[in-house]
Amino acid sequence: MLPVVVVHGGAGHIPKERSETSTTGVCSAVRAGYAVLQGGGSSMDAVVEAVTQLENNPSFNAGCGSVLNIKGEVEMDAMVMDGKTLASGAVSIVRNIANPIQLARLVMDKTSHVCLAGEGANQFARSMGVPEVPLESLITDYSRMRWKKNLVPGANPVECQMGKMGTVGAVAVDIEGNVASATSTGGILNKMEGRVGDTPVIGSGGYADNEIGAVSTTGHGEAIMKITLARLILFHMEQGQSVEAASDLGLAYMKSRVDGLGGVVTVDPHGHWAARFSSLQMSWAAAQKNTIHYGLYTGEHFTQSIVEPR
Amino acid sequence: MLPVVVVHGGAGHIPKERSETSTTGVCSAVRAGYAVLQGGGSSMDAVVEAVTQLENNPSFNAGCGSVLNIKGEVEMDAMVMDGKTLASGAVSIVRNIANPIQLARLVMDKTSHVCLAGEGANQFARSMGVPEVPLESLITDYSRMRWKKNLVPGANPVECQMGKMGTVGAVAVDIEGNVASATSTGGILNKMEGRVGDTPVIGSGGYADNEIGAVSTTGHGEAIMKITLARLILFHMEQGQSVEAASDLGLAYMKSRVDGLGGVVTVDPHGHWAARFSSLQMSWAAAQKNTIHYGLYTGEHFTQSIVEPR
Repeated sequence: MLPVVVVHGGAGHIPKERSETSTTGVCSAVRAGYAVLQGGGSSMDAVVEAVTQLENNPSFNAGCGSVLNIKGEVEMDAMVMDGKTLASGAVSIVRNIANPIQLARLVMDKTSHVCLAGEGANQFARSMGVPEVPLESLITDYSRMRWKKNLVPGANPVECQMGKMGTVGAVAVDIEGNVASATSTGGILNKMEGRVGDTPVIGSGGYADNEIGAVSTTGHGEAIMKITLARLILFHMEQGQSVEAASDLGLAYMKSRVDGLGGVVTVDPHGHWAARFSSLQMSWAAAQKNTIHYGLYTGEHFTQSIVEPR
Repeated sequence: MLPVVVVHGGAGHIPKERSETSTTGVCSAVRAGYAVLQGGGSSMDAVVEAVTQLENNPSFNAGCGSVLNIKGEVEMDAMVMDGKTLASGAVSIVRNIANPIQLARLVMDKTSHVCLAGEGANQFARSMGVPEVPLESLITDYSRMRWKKNLVPGANPVECQMGKMGTVGAVAVDIEGNVASATSTGGILNKMEGRVGDTPVIGSGGYADNEIGAVSTTGHGEAIMKITLARLILFHMEQGQSVEAASDLGLAYMKSRVDGLGGVVTVDPHGHWAARFSSLQMSWAAAQKNTIHYGLYTGEHFTQSIVEPR
């Protein structure tokens, strides 16, 4: 059954004109992650590659294309977790970095800490030779338009949040049965400066444990944190629930207990996988046995074959 | 059985000359928290009052007395969580604030976010009229001595960490059966700038849920985060374990899985409580039925009566 990689491009309400780029983007990212696994790479390599692709794609709310905070700036959160050792690395409210997910991995690999925030994270980036990029290179016209729209007195923040709720993420199982999780985000539109969401929070934005499985989450960060969604889903799996049932139980609890919507991608160490959401939409894609699976609305499940490289 | 408040002053190895001030400090803090409950205050009011006392006491690694980071500065993390609504507030790597726990509560009460980090947290403090204090007012001679000692080439970081591993925290149950958790810390000695530990991370540094109970943790933050210690203990309680057994199961798992030591204070909504640790010591105190319970080494359990105010 294994290996597998599953990605999400964010839960929320995606405007019609952006649904095609969103679907194309997750399919492309999952292909890149799957190619890593096929080349003998680890699940950690695969999720970082998939999320890097999503960060580089301006259609998604992570890296280039991140939503803007109240001041019109970009502050990003990201996290990786390795199911073999429970090692984890995260960055929060980091600025001027093209690929926060790669910086999060460096925190895991090169420091004794799990999370670095703010200017300290940028100092660490410089010490590792990670280039800083101009703020403008992370901002799209679309992000700026939505930010301005929401500053207008009487603006409807829910409408403005449309299409920008999402966080991106990936989970994978490699040929050795190791699981990994990676999640990256620009946060929520017009957030306060310094706001940290669920993404860099172990157990909320993601979790990975070879003995259970791996989860990456998206949706309303404050709700996700209140119920530690990723860890909750894995607790259900520890008690015998399938990846799908456990994901649904976690999302249903989030709706009933704290009135929050979101979505998840989940795997177990055998390669079973699920992409589930309680929001109107979530762009997702999975790659396994040379087939890409993908969808956007509830119940959608398209497939296409991956042509083997000759 | 209820109401009750339980505090910890940090797990670790407390030098002999500091053990008395540490014990006096937790007993004094638990009295203050208990007085809030006796006056009809909420569990949230009680834990914030108890932790405020510990932050103000220079013997503890939170507020004044915080350990210094590699640059000799103070960056603090704190979190509160309300078991009734799962509402939570946190600040991370905040500077120049005397009582981060009160700022964390303001994040919960006055914003739509759960966590604010760095300069954004300080901006929020200013907007709320919370005064900023000079860095020097948070630094004790003892903290500076330990920091310098650890900068010497060939220093033994484990020895230098002695007596400064701890984070402070409190859990409580009020007369209505509402539970709350509060945790505050200066982090770990000579940490990198921007390092975020477990304390502001929901599910790791603390958790509170009226349907299960509340936990506040202390110990090696990176280990605590990897296993989401607070939420893990509450999962064991959901499955029928007592506060004591669940706490021990969580701590034993942290030792076996990620080789981490620490301690916790735990309550359930009926007022059962536990103070448990896998480290050599943890200063702790509990107040219930007009009696103070306290201890420092494994197996120690002293009691003294609280004289009722006339």
